[in-house]
Amino acid sequence: MDPISRLIRELARLPGIGQKTATRLAFHVLRAPAPQVRDLAQALHEVKEKIRLCSHCMNLTEHDPCALCADASRDGRVICVVAHPPDLLAIERTSSFRGRYHVLHGVLSPLDGVGPDDLKLRELLLRVQGKPQHISDEEDEAALSSQPANQPAITEIIVATSPNVEGEATAMYIARMLKPLGLRVTRIASGLPIGGELEYADGITIARALEVRREI
Amino acid sequence: MDPISRLIRELARLPGIGQKTATRLAFHVLRAPAPQVRDLAQALHEVKEKIRLCSHCMNLTEHDPCALCADASRDGRVICVVAHPPDLLAIERTSSFRGRYHVLHGVLSPLDGVGPDDLKLRELLLRVQGKPQHISDEEDEAALSSQPANQPAITEIIVATSPNVEGEATAMYIARMLKPLGLRVTRIASGLPIGGELEYADGITIARALEVRREI
Repeated sequence: MDPISRLIRELARLPGIGQKTATRLAFHVLRAPAPQVRDLAQALHEVKEKIRLCSHCMNLTEHDPCALCADASRDGRVICVVAHPPDLLAIERTSSFRGRYHVLHGVLSPLDGVGPDDLKLRELLLRVQGKPQHISDEEDEAALSSQPANQPAITEIIVATSPNVEGEATAMYIARMLKPLGLRVTRIASGLPIGGELEYADGITIARALEVRREI
Repeated sequence: MDPISRLIRELARLPGIGQKTATRLAFHVLRAPAPQVRDLAQALHEVKEKIRLCSHCMNLTEHDPCALCADASRDGRVICVVAHPPDLLAIERTSSFRGRYHVLHGVLSPLDGVGPDDLKLRELLLRVQGKPQHISDEEDEAALSSQPANQPAITEIIVATSPNVEGEATAMYIARMLKPLGLRVTRIASGLPIGGELEYADGITIARALEVRREI
């Protein structure tokens, strides 16, 4: 297979990129300045090499702990739980939340075979209990030991999963898991359009939904 | 800048990819299997490293002469002139043309500052005159010398630029340049939707337009 066909095939494997778009992109790449294409290839490579999970909040990060967990000015008593890293970015863009986060990397979806063990729920439980979270390799163990000892006790969990069936089910599961520990578990208000995706909601709607969150 | 933001920025530089699509693609890349991402980065790299212009038809190719120019079963007496490499692929997909090609790498567009010297028009003239085309480096010189000596004389030039203002102007320019040499210069019929782009036309329309080409 020649290099152009190979590039078209690889581009067409990306989500939302069909054969025609892949062809258009490939010929753009052929015309583009070499440094620009090298930068893109390098960025693809680096993102896979350097990005891992923050041992505290499970967000994607280059350095462990991540910038948000390392930021002493943020309120460690309130944890906002999101399904995916882009959801976290969407909330950060509104500048309306100054607590910390926990990324589940999915939502409960029995039809798709996604159960509690497939999400970072155990890590959330250990985190609110103040216990070290399960860590898979030694490098991360070292990073964890650098965790400041004076973490404030967590008092509130805001569940900011999308307001659809899976998101609601995940919120209910978290409430049942954490309320027995005496924690306040809240849900962002569904000022968000029902059935929509958090990632694509506008900032004002997200900020409003955070503000009028309700007890669950 | 962290690797994720850098990847989003590089992806957003591609045509038709905005900030949101770039973000979606970047997080897909983070979740995708490492070999798949490595293949994409590699394909981007290779396409810039290995692809150059065929010294005969100016099409993009890995090997010089390209597969189409090296194919002895094709009719070397008829040359189909296209603006861009994807146009050539669109015609090839119809399997309705068995001659050879010449790729201009653009169309005349005075408003955009594209004049005859910016296109591969000089190479087309030298080619129909049976003279070696201007070649920039020694490797290509060597490739050219491997050209079979018994190339048949070219008798017809089919101008298959898109049927819009720039494409028509380019066709007229080619007709004025080549008709004094006693060549038949034809134009694909505008069975193609006027104002549209050849690259995206359906195969039947392209085949029909080739078939009922007219003298210019």
